[in-house]
Amino acid sequence: METLWLSIDSSTPRGSVAVVCGTELVAEVCLQVKARTHSDYLLRYAEFLLSEVGATVSQVEKLCVVEGPGSFTGLRVGLATVQGLAQRLDCPVYTVSSLQVMAYLHGPVAGPVFPLLDARKKELYGARYDWVEGVPRCSGLPFVLPPETIASLLPDGALVLGDAAVSNRDCLDGVVAGRLLFGGVASGVPSSGGAALLVARHLDHFPALTAKSLRPLYVRASDAELQKSRLK
Amino acid sequence: METLWLSIDSSTPRGSVAVVCGTELVAEVCLQVKARTHSDYLLRYAEFLLSEVGATVSQVEKLCVVEGPGSFTGLRVGLATVQGLAQRLDCPVYTVSSLQVMAYLHGPVAGPVFPLLDARKKELYGARYDWVEGVPRCSGLPFVLPPETIASLLPDGALVLGDAAVSNRDCLDGVVAGRLLFGGVASGVPSSGGAALLVARHLDHFPALTAKSLRPLYVRASDAELQKSRLK
Repeated sequence: METLWLSIDSSTPRGSVAVVCGTELVAEVCLQVKARTHSDYLLRYAEFLLSEVGATVSQVEKLCVVEGPGSFTGLRVGLATVQGLAQRLDCPVYTVSSLQVMAYLHGPVAGPVFPLLDARKKELYGARYDWVEGVPRCSGLPFVLPPETIASLLPDGALVLGDAAVSNRDCLDGVVAGRLLFGGVASGVPSSGGAALLVARHLDHFPALTAKSLRPLYVRASDAELQKSRLK
Repeated sequence: METLWLSIDSSTPRGSVAVVCGTELVAEVCLQVKARTHSDYLLRYAEFLLSEVGATVSQVEKLCVVEGPGSFTGLRVGLATVQGLAQRLDCPVYTVSSLQVMAYLHGPVAGPVFPLLDARKKELYGARYDWVEGVPRCSGLPFVLPPETIASLLPDGALVLGDAAVSNRDCLDGVVAGRLLFGGVASGVPSSGGAALLVARHLDHFPALTAKSLRPLYVRASDAELQKSRLK
């Protein structure tokens, strides 16, 4: 039997749950949340999808979760859900960057790739990725910066990915319209399916973690943390 | 209120249903079919997704369906499902090529794009697309050919998309490994969400059809049609 994976992404308002069997995507569901939160549906969708492919939660062998950067609340809900499942199933967890998933969804390119995600407060999360041996690898550290600053850092001809990149196209292009390449709708946001395929197909790049060791990748401090540091 | 779209793709073994509101994807579910067929779940998933976004089937205003090329049985099931919905709802239907959806999912590129899909019998469906004003447009007609023949027709530096392209990489590359660019997992097969976003965001490119006028795009004759022609 091939390994049964369950994968969760709630790093953006469009959360998703996916089931991967071996190295193939067999089912995935995504939902754009508005009034409701990710916690309303993640476990319910996991059970639904597994039942659609003739399996149950207890048969899941490996878990995958998008660690961020992204929505603080979304990341906490996703990680908590996966932590609970990992303890119940006593199985390993693999975490992936939301930005790396976007680069992987788009596919290999010769030059640098900059996946970007909305960070609110007129800033974007991003990082530079370069494809090495079939996997996009992060060069340097992820950043959170205003689009004007990112524009000044992007080399001509760079590929930028994400719905947030497209909606900031004029600013990112700067004075030279058309100097950047933009990705398509399929790499607009990360996805649980893309995350699980990346890990399942390149398992040697991702360490197996335990439920206890999971941490969200915030890049910038949450408002709660900022408040706390000011009170010290 | 923004237009509520329901979209169906059953052109490959990984079928999907999507709900688009205005020009944004709000929910999508995909399933890799094995023993079961697309007819088992398309309508059920449509009702499920609409209920998840607080709507009902009767509120759907526009329908979208992937017309092919692809699995004959899949296309017939998808078109029949959409025909039934269109008659019940008395609403327009928009059809999109599976290959155009794959090009759109990947996003704009400067050169030619060749989305490829498994056509069984050791052949692939494909077509050449070129991006013009934000939309991938078909140059010439879709074809169904053995990968060896496609390899001899692909210009150096061309971008080829699709899981079928990746699994035929050695053959397509020919004697010069690395002469072609390959897409990522997100454009591996078409999707109902990609189809609906393409149509909803570029409505002037797609004529509104009625339920009666829907026809699958087979590219090659089905076995049933071939048998019939031999008996004439």
